[in-house]
Amino acid sequence: MSKLIYRRRPSARPAAHSGVAAHSGEPTHGPLTREELQLAVRNHSMPLEALREDLTPPGLHYVLTHFDIPQVSGAWHLRIGGAVERAMELSLAALKRDPAISVQVTMECAGNGRSLLRPRPLSQPWTLEGVGTAVWTGVPLAYLLSQAGVEPEAVEVVFTGLDAGIQGGVRQQYARSLPISEASRADVVLAYKMNGSELPPQHGYPLRLVVPGWYGMASVKWLQSIQVVTTPFQGFQQAVAYRYQHNADDAGTPVSRIRVRSLMVPPGIPDFFTRRRYLHRGPVMFHGRAWSGEGAVTKVEVGIDGKWVPAQLDKPAGAFAWRGWSLPWVADAGHHELACRATDATGAVQPLEQHWNYQGMGNNTVQRVRVIVE
Amino acid sequence: MSKLIYRRRPSARPAAHSGVAAHSGEPTHGPLTREELQLAVRNHSMPLEALREDLTPPGLHYVLTHFDIPQVSGAWHLRIGGAVERAMELSLAALKRDPAISVQVTMECAGNGRSLLRPRPLSQPWTLEGVGTAVWTGVPLAYLLSQAGVEPEAVEVVFTGLDAGIQGGVRQQYARSLPISEASRADVVLAYKMNGSELPPQHGYPLRLVVPGWYGMASVKWLQSIQVVTTPFQGFQQAVAYRYQHNADDAGTPVSRIRVRSLMVPPGIPDFFTRRRYLHRGPVMFHGRAWSGEGAVTKVEVGIDGKWVPAQLDKPAGAFAWRGWSLPWVADAGHHELACRATDATGAVQPLEQHWNYQGMGNNTVQRVRVIVE
Repeated sequence: MSKLIYRRRPSARPAAHSGVAAHSGEPTHGPLTREELQLAVRNHSMPLEALREDLTPPGLHYVLTHFDIPQVSGAWHLRIGGAVERAMELSLAALKRDPAISVQVTMECAGNGRSLLRPRPLSQPWTLEGVGTAVWTGVPLAYLLSQAGVEPEAVEVVFTGLDAGIQGGVRQQYARSLPISEASRADVVLAYKMNGSELPPQHGYPLRLVVPGWYGMASVKWLQSIQVVTTPFQGFQQAVAYRYQHNADDAGTPVSRIRVRSLMVPPGIPDFFTRRRYLHRGPVMFHGRAWSGEGAVTKVEVGIDGKWVPAQLDKPAGAFAWRGWSLPWVADAGHHELACRATDATGAVQPLEQHWNYQGMGNNTVQRVRVIVE
Repeated sequence: MSKLIYRRRPSARPAAHSGVAAHSGEPTHGPLTREELQLAVRNHSMPLEALREDLTPPGLHYVLTHFDIPQVSGAWHLRIGGAVERAMELSLAALKRDPAISVQVTMECAGNGRSLLRPRPLSQPWTLEGVGTAVWTGVPLAYLLSQAGVEPEAVEVVFTGLDAGIQGGVRQQYARSLPISEASRADVVLAYKMNGSELPPQHGYPLRLVVPGWYGMASVKWLQSIQVVTTPFQGFQQAVAYRYQHNADDAGTPVSRIRVRSLMVPPGIPDFFTRRRYLHRGPVMFHGRAWSGEGAVTKVEVGIDGKWVPAQLDKPAGAFAWRGWSLPWVADAGHHELACRATDATGAVQPLEQHWNYQGMGNNTVQRVRVIVE
């Protein structure tokens, strides 16, 4: 591996104890910072009106890039090694000759909703739009691992991207691991196509790991290597970042599957600057989408001025894709507060009040939309 | 026209006098507002590493949407009317049977660079990345106008999009005009393709006006109608917004062509949160792009710790597309400040210090990149 790779830590103990912040500084009640603005303009969110579509149109799927979009050499090969019987280096052409699957996946940034938390953790300041749904096509990871032959003492698989930078003072290439059990799932894919087209640069060209049901940090972009390891991976993005922590000194627990959430297309028309919504009195149809990485969405309710009404659910679009929902309403003049909340098959329900954590991860508090009916 | 259209003003006098702010409130030295963050997460910028490419990859071209991306009915037709001999309603299929041209165009938001101004005008808080280059394909506007037969008393052509909202207290559909002379240019196109693919929703599907050389506000998306008029158009986006004003009471002058500008790919690797750049000592090649809507780019200089060195210019890629440039450097350890500035054929040079204006338009102050060489 290159010299840019993570420094290995001496033990498997999560490094969050080290006091190295995953992002930068203490959560704040203060104003937005210049650093947050720089991240907000770089990282694309999905405008909520795109919730109308089953598949997020090209260019509207959320993108979170920790460092820069890397330049990929024409000599690119995927390296598979570590605790395997047969290490391999595979060209993109070779990967395209392997068996392929397509999976429709709703992917959400683990930090989605962060900027709505109080106090506000300092990192990419998503409001609600760090989400999107696409069909990813490529080689099942399990197929490649079976070709390589995983050694019996293996515990995890480490995925390293070409993207390099510094975070929390640590020089690194972006890297994450999956337990063998997750890496062996039939639906985890090494994708070279997104919605039937070549993977765009910002989504990981030439190859991206896609882990359906997990927050986006697991779906490593610009894959350079897959290493099977016999001790748990302690890289920065695994042991420091992407953890549910109470405070900086808490080792925390790892972020993994997507918590249940629903979002609605804000009805009416916006004011350019305030984004306040205006609509005419009379019939209006609410539309939205709901998803969970833990189990199927079983219920969506729409809150209208505090009263919860069950929405009509569309047919599911697969185990890992969001589910459409709708509800008719007759708007009467005045100010109204709309909300929506989903429940999944595990019984998990979106909270009405924030479940705060130090890094601002997995904030699935219900969306609230204020509308003015004229 | 629909009831959402602009209220006509009694005279042709610019409405900026009316005291209606184009955006919201007075420019500020204060912290970033929640409203600016909402705009920053909605509106996509082009990560500067995409300056490596002649054509901005799909999904990375900047997008500024005043209101929502509208839903377009299958019954969509383009209406051409007003002071013409033959009013028309044309389907997309009919437009695709007309003669077509393709034009490679660098498009930039007029508000690009706004958030770097002091005091900071309150609107979409671009830093430097509100730009992109694409090949736009469609029917020359001049061809359609000749088919319609423009009446001799015509002075302008008004373009109205389907996107509706409220700005500066005015309920409106987004609309802009061009003088007949500009509308008659051979290179102004009604585009239904972007880089050879169907126009994406966020870029104006099914049809977008593209005015090469002008800031992006002229390139009206989701075109609904083209109206030839005999008095100057006084819609909000023409008479109030998109003006160079000294203050709120100044009528100002209209924003039109793109001011000369260059940007560089920030060298090295970034820190995730601060976006500070780090590189190793030794040889490094600077790359960037330069463009102007006023005339060809004739010179690009790179500033290294305040000393200006001429860069090598690539072959031009057409009259309206950015021009690549490069310069080798040998980095020595320490902190350095890099900058780049372009000159165009009219003699215009990017300023070193801001030319402030009330709406934060056309800020082409030189880019500065601080790097740490280790």
